[in-house]
Amino acid sequence: MLPLNLAVGKKALYINTGAWAKKAIAAAKQVPNVDVEVIASSEDGKFTYIPSVTPDKIDQMAAYLHITTNETIGGIAYHELPDTGVVPIVADMSSNILANNYRVEDFGVIYAGAQKNIGAAGLTLVIIREDLLNKEAIFAPMLDYRLQAENNSLYNTPATYSIYIAKLVFEWIKELGGQAEMYRLAQAKAQILYDTLDASTLFKSPVSKENRSLTNIPFITGDAVIDKQFIAGAEAAGFQNLKGHRSVGGMRASIYNAFPVEGVQALVEFMTSFEHENGNGAK
Amino acid sequence: MLPLNLAVGKKALYINTGAWAKKAIAAAKQVPNVDVEVIASSEDGKFTYIPSVTPDKIDQMAAYLHITTNETIGGIAYHELPDTGVVPIVADMSSNILANNYRVEDFGVIYAGAQKNIGAAGLTLVIIREDLLNKEAIFAPMLDYRLQAENNSLYNTPATYSIYIAKLVFEWIKELGGQAEMYRLAQAKAQILYDTLDASTLFKSPVSKENRSLTNIPFITGDAVIDKQFIAGAEAAGFQNLKGHRSVGGMRASIYNAFPVEGVQALVEFMTSFEHENGNGAK
Repeated sequence: MLPLNLAVGKKALYINTGAWAKKAIAAAKQVPNVDVEVIASSEDGKFTYIPSVTPDKIDQMAAYLHITTNETIGGIAYHELPDTGVVPIVADMSSNILANNYRVEDFGVIYAGAQKNIGAAGLTLVIIREDLLNKEAIFAPMLDYRLQAENNSLYNTPATYSIYIAKLVFEWIKELGGQAEMYRLAQAKAQILYDTLDASTLFKSPVSKENRSLTNIPFITGDAVIDKQFIAGAEAAGFQNLKGHRSVGGMRASIYNAFPVEGVQALVEFMTSFEHENGNGAK
Repeated sequence: MLPLNLAVGKKALYINTGAWAKKAIAAAKQVPNVDVEVIASSEDGKFTYIPSVTPDKIDQMAAYLHITTNETIGGIAYHELPDTGVVPIVADMSSNILANNYRVEDFGVIYAGAQKNIGAAGLTLVIIREDLLNKEAIFAPMLDYRLQAENNSLYNTPATYSIYIAKLVFEWIKELGGQAEMYRLAQAKAQILYDTLDASTLFKSPVSKENRSLTNIPFITGDAVIDKQFIAGAEAAGFQNLKGHRSVGGMRASIYNAFPVEGVQALVEFMTSFEHENGNGAK
């Protein structure tokens, strides 16, 4: 949808940071008459870091540079946006929207599925800079950002109930102190877990420190048998969905906005006692 | 989405029965390399009837013939499907799905928004005959029926909550006796209203008898002032949304599956006493 609206007849730049970036790249490559260029990738490092891009790598005639602000599988995130010159940054912010300190004005387009920090799955939010809306209609009305904007997002009957749930979540976030407070909480929750990982002799984070995600935190012991024991024990103790994605293995804690700090504290206590029981002292 | 999947490089036939058919035609005309042909229209009669089509009007090489099984504004519906030869019938069944006696096997594609008889707005259902799925991928994954079918409708995270609500509605319909019982109820409810209209000297149905909708029933007095009085009086008595669509005027009763027979009975009682108060006896 994005390349169809912004990049037909133009170059579209992508940074490959993992599974979600790859999906965006594959989808863009299917759109006719869009010149897709992947200007940086961390695939060589199994997506454990965000590749840096220097401004000279960015064709200033490109329609946009696409980034995935947070990769849920690799567990990496942008904490600083790349310098792109005049090229707008377009971001899939699905997994860390409203849990970061990004500024809307730094993006040409932000799009995000609602299912992480906004509400029910199946709703997608798009924020687009007005000058990036098409001049000409796209042949498929339901894919046309301009048509949607002109109709106040009501061209088709939208997902009313999902929008209502999103409204309730937005109100809840506002009450708590808005995006800034959610960011503070996300940092605090992640810090508890990363501190534990960094102090542990059993568990470790496979991810480069400066790109660590605040929302999806993979960790490993380096021993698949112990990983399995830990996941089984954790599940028995009430910690759900700690198994890492099959492409990465190990464990992964997903701590979206709805996840309480108490849950993170309980997890690190469980990790610490598991480590002691398995004969490993702290570093 | 439909012409993009089924009709690129081919002819796509449409019957223009009103506002919804027109939207489908307009959308199809935007898809490049689709030869859209409107083979029949009731626009000359202000969409008060379903135009008949004879098999000789149907190019047997066409990708499909598109119909709108029920038009909510005009209040007309298909009670018999046209004979199309080998050309599959493709139907927008949004407003009378599960309130009719159509058989799935008579259609090449059925698509319907959920908001009338299935559940929350924003969910769309597609039933497609397997041999009509594309052989080749479409450039926009979210528009590709085949890709969705191959992924059990889970290529993207779907609208989970809306699907859950739909499941509850399907269970409710099954409990009541399935589509056959919903059709029986729809007929019974519509009959009460049409009987009243046909016996009235004040109110009348503007729609041709053999194409009357079971779900959306427009009626008029022929006098805009009386219409207005009736709508105001009805609203004060608790009957909502009786105002006809601005393009038609008059009144319109929408009696989808969730609307109880008691509501229709109450409405006709109100109509009868309004008629008596306004000095009109029964015919």
